[in-house]
Amino acid sequence: MHISELDTPAVIIDLDVLERNLRRAQEYFDRHGIRFRPHMKTHKSPEIGRLQVEHGAVGLTCAKLGEAEVMADAGIRDLMVAYPLWGEQKLRRLARLAERCTLTVVFDSAEVAEAISRALSAEGLEVGALVEIDTGMHRCGIAPGPAMVELCRRAADLPGLRFRGLMTYQGFIGGTAAEREAELRAEQDRLEGILGSLSTAGLTWEVVSGGTSPSMFLSHLAPAINENRSGTYVFNDRNMVGSGCVTWDDCAMQVAVTVVSNAVPGQIIVDAGSKTFSSDRSAGEEGFGRFVEDPCLVLEKMNEEHGYTRLNGTSQPHPIGQRLHVIPNHVCTAMNMHDEVWVHRGGEVVDCWKVAARGKLR
Amino acid sequence: MHISELDTPAVIIDLDVLERNLRRAQEYFDRHGIRFRPHMKTHKSPEIGRLQVEHGAVGLTCAKLGEAEVMADAGIRDLMVAYPLWGEQKLRRLARLAERCTLTVVFDSAEVAEAISRALSAEGLEVGALVEIDTGMHRCGIAPGPAMVELCRRAADLPGLRFRGLMTYQGFIGGTAAEREAELRAEQDRLEGILGSLSTAGLTWEVVSGGTSPSMFLSHLAPAINENRSGTYVFNDRNMVGSGCVTWDDCAMQVAVTVVSNAVPGQIIVDAGSKTFSSDRSAGEEGFGRFVEDPCLVLEKMNEEHGYTRLNGTSQPHPIGQRLHVIPNHVCTAMNMHDEVWVHRGGEVVDCWKVAARGKLR
Repeated sequence: MHISELDTPAVIIDLDVLERNLRRAQEYFDRHGIRFRPHMKTHKSPEIGRLQVEHGAVGLTCAKLGEAEVMADAGIRDLMVAYPLWGEQKLRRLARLAERCTLTVVFDSAEVAEAISRALSAEGLEVGALVEIDTGMHRCGIAPGPAMVELCRRAADLPGLRFRGLMTYQGFIGGTAAEREAELRAEQDRLEGILGSLSTAGLTWEVVSGGTSPSMFLSHLAPAINENRSGTYVFNDRNMVGSGCVTWDDCAMQVAVTVVSNAVPGQIIVDAGSKTFSSDRSAGEEGFGRFVEDPCLVLEKMNEEHGYTRLNGTSQPHPIGQRLHVIPNHVCTAMNMHDEVWVHRGGEVVDCWKVAARGKLR
Repeated sequence: MHISELDTPAVIIDLDVLERNLRRAQEYFDRHGIRFRPHMKTHKSPEIGRLQVEHGAVGLTCAKLGEAEVMADAGIRDLMVAYPLWGEQKLRRLARLAERCTLTVVFDSAEVAEAISRALSAEGLEVGALVEIDTGMHRCGIAPGPAMVELCRRAADLPGLRFRGLMTYQGFIGGTAAEREAELRAEQDRLEGILGSLSTAGLTWEVVSGGTSPSMFLSHLAPAINENRSGTYVFNDRNMVGSGCVTWDDCAMQVAVTVVSNAVPGQIIVDAGSKTFSSDRSAGEEGFGRFVEDPCLVLEKMNEEHGYTRLNGTSQPHPIGQRLHVIPNHVCTAMNMHDEVWVHRGGEVVDCWKVAARGKLR
């Protein structure tokens, strides 16, 4: 079947582009001796998780425990849950998952560390542990200083935990490449100081986890970060192109849509809105996505199932039933709207993949 | 089980509030002799769809054909698909659905009308048909005038279609109650003119569909609209309270969340972000939801799984593991993130309902 025969709205994945993105990232990290543990939140798909590991990833990063369970079911055997896990139900599930995977957890508080330690050590289990530090993004993460060193020591001492190192969230995704370069060099300076304080305290580490897709190919500028967990690079999106680090040809995911109304002058309505794309905005550009066939069209407004698309003076007529393709602003939240995606090579559908970890919020 | 024992994030529905919302709406429409065909996009739940019909709704409104199929499976026998249906796959499914339900379709173009007519009449089937008109919101809808009358005549003449009347989208959800009153009176004037042009052309109609939750209890001011398709009223949300038409006590849906980090001064992180709430903003207020326990907390920013919550000077300490509840900005897109919801009376969980039409985008 050709992608033009798919009913819309439908997510289509260009497998050639996806594979090129996977190869290019892995080759870069291999060249620089950086371990790659990509974040699966972007795709939530067992098939893509397996492809990432087959290409050389050491394992996967997950945000939620339910995502990790899906990836374990898919056969991935080395998983990091990069999120503070809390609550009896989650701790019971964590113990079951630890029996079948190599697991690493992340926390920024003694409360979370101690609860995980109790739950796992009671069953004679152990997981790796990273302490999340705040190097400037002010999301989770304990500030560098004596309390941070003390939490690392606690992680090293607690039963059921094996202290492996640090994690930081480097969400500086805006700005120019030059600004991201400067940010990474400053990050390296910060991390050298932080790691020095661990050494002084007699603590050893094997992992410093960081990284984000827009600065992925600059990761060698902050060599203290020896494990990268970028996610968006598998598909790329309008925000990634806007950041200047990839081109439209690197975008592996599109949403096929259909013109369903052209009754209002100067506008067409496509059969996809905020329940297809998510409402995530673009950092720099107007609208909610880029039309592949006519980049002058502006997806300027959405209701849940309606995409208000502004024509421009030079635009061709857009008849009812016309098929168009949109590259979303933010592919991670757009994928999360869909239960399945169609995979093609050169337009011929070769597979349909479930977004199996969609909705795994716990 | 008490709701406090649910793992988070979790959507909880207060059944007492839900039933009160259902009763109050139906009583209002009954009192004014207006048929009620609520939009199921808000809840996407078979159980709530059945409750709406049990309370007196004539049937349900759906946006997508897949939503209608779910509601037909739930036993709802009178459905309107308020969306221009296009494409061979959808038309085949429409025919199958027409065999087991009383169906009404909506269109604003001869192309869509003729395609539906061909698909249904070829099998000896017939569906009701409304022509969508644009009375000012400029989404779908043909402008009032001779072309509109001509499309209605076409709908009346085409085999497989039974012309039933008009639909308009009345998305004027902002403004004060006084502004909405003025808007509804103006809408009545417009509709009288439009319906006059149908009469003049010798066309008869039985349905004029309109309505939206913020102006639901003002519907009697535009009596030309004899069928209302409000949706949000079942749950209400922060936008509805902001519009002044309901109070916080009328909000039946909340999201239970947990504080997972308080490492950054002046802030807590809750375990719910844009993949739990959607990124929909509030018309008038900062942030992405209202904290029930402490309305001074501001859910000011989200990543996919992180809710950045700004404390204020007077806020109590928020320990790791604290349970909080959030009323989302826009309940329709928030519900759409979840596969199931927990239903309670006075905090005791009485049921778990599937959001069975979630992701039914086609």
